Formats: sequence, C-alpha cells, structure tokens
Amino acid sequence: MIKTSEVLRMKNIIGMSLVEKELYNILKGSHKNTSRICKNLIVSGGKRIRPALVLCTSQCFGKLNKEAIKGAAACECIHMASLVHDDIIDESLMRRNQPTVNAKRGNYTAVLVGDYLFAKAFEILSKNNLIRSMEVVVDAISKMCDGEIFQAENKFNLEQTNKDYYNRIYQKTGVLLSACTQVGAISANAQEEEINAFKLYGENLGYAYQIIDDILDFTGDEKILGKPIGADLVEGNITLPILKLMEQGKYKDWLKEIFEKGLIKEKYNGIIKLLKDSYVLEESYLEAELCVKKAKGALSSIEDSIYKELLLGIADKILIRKY
Amino acid sequence: MIKTSEVLRMKNIIGMSLVEKELYNILKGSHKNTSRICKNLIVSGGKRIRPALVLCTSQCFGKLNKEAIKGAAACECIHMASLVHDDIIDESLMRRNQPTVNAKRGNYTAVLVGDYLFAKAFEILSKNNLIRSMEVVVDAISKMCDGEIFQAENKFNLEQTNKDYYNRIYQKTGVLLSACTQVGAISANAQEEEINAFKLYGENLGYAYQIIDDILDFTGDEKILGKPIGADLVEGNITLPILKLMEQGKYKDWLKEIFEKGLIKEKYNGIIKLLKDSYVLEESYLEAELCVKKAKGALSSIEDSIYKELLLGIADKILIRKY
Repeated sequence: MIKTSEVLRMKNIIGMSLVEKELYNILKGSHKNTSRICKNLIVSGGKRIRPALVLCTSQCFGKLNKEAIKGAAACECIHMASLVHDDIIDESLMRRNQPTVNAKRGNYTAVLVGDYLFAKAFEILSKNNLIRSMEVVVDAISKMCDGEIFQAENKFNLEQTNKDYYNRIYQKTGVLLSACTQVGAISANAQEEEINAFKLYGENLGYAYQIIDDILDFTGDEKILGKPIGADLVEGNITLPILKLMEQGKYKDWLKEIFEKGLIKEKYNGIIKLLKDSYVLEESYLEAELCVKKAKGALSSIEDSIYKELLLGIADKILIRKY
Repeated sequence: MIKTSEVLRMKNIIGMSLVEKELYNILKGSHKNTSRICKNLIVSGGKRIRPALVLCTSQCFGKLNKEAIKGAAACECIHMASLVHDDIIDESLMRRNQPTVNAKRGNYTAVLVGDYLFAKAFEILSKNNLIRSMEVVVDAISKMCDGEIFQAENKFNLEQTNKDYYNRIYQKTGVLLSACTQVGAISANAQEEEINAFKLYGENLGYAYQIIDDILDFTGDEKILGKPIGADLVEGNITLPILKLMEQGKYKDWLKEIFEKGLIKEKYNGIIKLLKDSYVLEESYLEAELCVKKAKGALSSIEDSIYKELLLGIADKILIRKY
C-alpha cells in the first residue's frame, strides 16, 4: 500500500513495537505447530498499515494508551486471518515471497489457522473489555465476508452500477480500514463526531486505495504487481474503468458480446487499448483523487498533530503508488 | 448425538423457538446469496444440542432470560461455522442429506460463509454486552482450532499417550460443549463454583461423546454412521481403543509395523478382530461410562429441577447411542 521508506516510518510510530509484542502473545499456550505457523505469519510482516491507522488515530487525541495497542493488535490479527483465508479462496501459492499456508500445509491447516487468528483477535478485544471496538470490528468482518460472497456470485455481470461498485469496494477494503480508525478513536475516548470523522477518513482511504488498485490492474507492471495485467477482468470482476467505458454507450454492446461469448482473453488487447484511448483510466484516477480529498477533508476539524500529518500523508501516498 | 424423539423434546425446551428467531436475525442486512446460504444452513437444522445445553443450564437457576437466548444463538452460530469449515477440511460433499456449501458453491464461498457465521456469533455477544461469555467462547474456538491443527500433524503417531488422547478429544468436542454450559450459567448470574460445576459437566459430556464416537468407528453400522467403518484409523487418527491395544505390549510392535509400512487397509480386518477379541472396546466403553458418571456427579450440588433432569438425561443417552 505504501513504499518501503514509509513502512520503516510506520514501524517507528510510537507503540508499534508494543503491538508486535502483543502479536507474539497470541502464540502462547498453543501447540508447537500452530505457534510455528502463526509466528511465520507475524515475522513475514507486511506493511502493518492497519495497526498504524489505529495508533495514529488514537494519538491524534493524546498519549498512547493500552486500549489502542490491544485494538491495533486485534485489527492486525483480523487482517492476517483474512489473508490466510483469501489465499485458500484464490488458490494463491505465494505471498510476501513465501509459500502461503495453504501451499505449504494444505487447505486443512489454512482454514484452521485463519479461524485461530480470528479467535485470537476477539480474545484480545474481549479480555480487555473493548466491547465498542469489538462491535465495529465484527461488523466489518461480516460485511467483508458478505461482500466477497456477493462478488463471487456477481462475476461477469455487466448490469452493475457505479453504486454497486462503490458498495463492493467498501466491503472489500474500506470497511476494515475504517474499523481501524474507529478503533483508534474509540480507544482514545473521542467524541461521537470525531469517531465519525475518522470513520469517513477510513472509508475514503479504502475507496481511493481500491480504485487505484483497479487502475493498476490495467496499467501496472506485472513484475511489481506479482500478477498478470488484467487479471481482475479475466476473472470477471467489473471495476470502475470498465463501468466508465460502458457509460460511453457505443462500447456497451460490444463489451457485452465479449463477456457473453467468453472472449475476454481473445479481445483483451483491444479492451486495454480502448481503456487507454477513451480516457476512462484518467477519469477513474480523478475519482480516486476526489476520495483522497474527502478522506483528508474528513479530518479538517481534528486538531493538528504529527499523527494527523501522518494520516494525511498516508492518504496522499495512495495516489502515487505504482504497485 | 441423541435420538429423534429426544431432538423433538430438545426443540420444546422453553426458549428454543426464540433461539431460532435469533438465528434468522443474522440474515438481516446481508446480500441475497449470503442470506440464502445461511438460511439453508439454519433450516437444515441439526440437533441444536448446543443451544439446548445453554438454555437448560441457564434455567437450572431460574426463569429464562434474554442473555441465555442470545448466548444460545451465538453458540449455535459457532457450531454451524465450524461445520462449514470442517466440510472444507474433510472435503465432505454431503451433510444432513444435503450437499455441503463447499460441494455446492466451492471452497471460496464456504470459507467466507464460515467466517461470516463466526462474525455473527461475536456480533450477537458484543451487541448484548456478553463479555464474559465471549471470553469463554473465544477460548473454546482457539482451542478447537489449535487442537485440530495438532491432530492434523500428529496422524499415524503411535507414541501418543492416553493424556494426549484426552487433551485432543477435549479440544475437539468437550471445549465447545463446556463453553455452552458455562455461557448458560453465566447468563443466569451463577456463582463461580456453579459455573465450574457446569464446566466440568460439559467437559465430561464431551469426553464420553467422543469416546463412544471412537468406539462406533469400529463397531457402528456404516449406513447409519454415513461413513465407512474404521475411517478414523485409515486416516491415521489414533483413538482410545487403539491406545488400549498398544498397552497390551505384545501388539505394539505388530501395530507399529503396520502403521510404518502403510498397511492399515490390508491388515484392517485383523485389527478389528483383535480389537474385539482383546476387550479394549469394552474397556473404552467403561471409560465413557466413567465420564458420564463424572458429568452427572459434577451437578450434584445443583438444585433439582426439570432442567437438571434433562441435562442428566442427555449424559445418559450418550452411552446408548448407536450412531
């Protein structure tokens, strides 16, 4: 989501090392194998963007507290769990340059490790009596799952609207990011309108991130992306650029025919050329920019601080990412 | 777990229809497909033993209350979620005479539906501020997953002890049953020693159930069990009868050789004959009887009531089940 230099900066956020410690705590009391697999997942890292959102949001309101650290660790557990389950779903064999749990130990263990991590996230929240954060987080998970089930069964459906698309990417990405910022604000005992401001920030961060992701699916570098260009389209996921192309009425029937006859791979180069020639990628980028603007705008009433700066910076960086 | 006549009786327990209503509530606000799949799971039923344990336990202490109903629904959600995930793990195609979610819609949807149901269970608990029940339940889930991961990686390991076996079946069955009885007792504001009594009841209920299950794996009727006799052994799960056979030193090396050379299927009839001739099945049954005695004994200090009677009856019925 952000560059390596930024990751390093993230890891220097006050409290991040305590979150790491909290993550290692989930290994306690488990059998050797469970512990080893989860430890691998923690060590292999990732960008820790979700705990960073929790910690930064919380510290917009004052000093770091225990609730923020626990909440941040729980959010990262949920993210790790969903990645382990996503890799089963997508039959992915590699992630972060390592074999996935399903590749190494089969779906059997991967289903269970994901469930274990979900349970540990809720254990952290319930043991620390973070009931309000729990509500936000469970709502996010059920929306994420519901959205993915819907997406799975709505592939190749060209009758989707822009609203459908935004709903879908909210459930896919925004809802968890916005849960993280809410957990941060709740941990700091923020006022309702402040919690809502951070909710809005997280949602728009998610929209912008996903729109850029969907643009990169057509324009990115295969080597950096780690997947073939146009993979989403080939799998039948209708994203913003395609929706925008359809709005230009003259291409609608042509695209429909391609979809109905299952000719996407054959006509693929033509579609890409059209996407580039018709400026829909630029138009999509403008929408991502607008979301970043909304995300930053949502924080306008929040008092300035280095943590607010960091959050504004995270939003800006989404627009310049190349992978 | 219990006979049909008993199931009917279970469903007549005061509060059971309210639990059903609560289960249908989880469909609200989800997309059509998610809702349809979950509705199917609810309708296809099952024995509802877990909510029955919650409701009976709670009503041992007085009138039915909202917390017990919510807790019972959450426990059933967790049970449904774990069945959906178990069917992926075991690659099962049928359950309760219906195609499983993975069979009908693929692992993709099945992973997500399980996650969705887990999230809904926690939603029920967190929305109703049932924080203590939540702690009990998350602990049960993480132990269940941890136990299954351990079991997966310890197949064909003959160096297991009786203690390992009891730990394993506790994590497989007892921990969730005992979570249900604890949730029931907690919902009724029971004293700590009363909660512990029901914890002990649930644990021993689980031991007895699983030992009988493991005996039936060798003696049951394939048609009624719905799986081939000895399936556990062929898959490398070392159960109590086999452990007892190994205790009779003279068979240990013979069994070891069979396991090491992968000759279980070939020597299968010989193993079954030996199990029957050596009285280890009877000895295992005696251990199950002892567990039932302990389960019932755990409730000795609990005041008599029809609900206590029902719980004692559930324990007794485990010993006479044939499937």
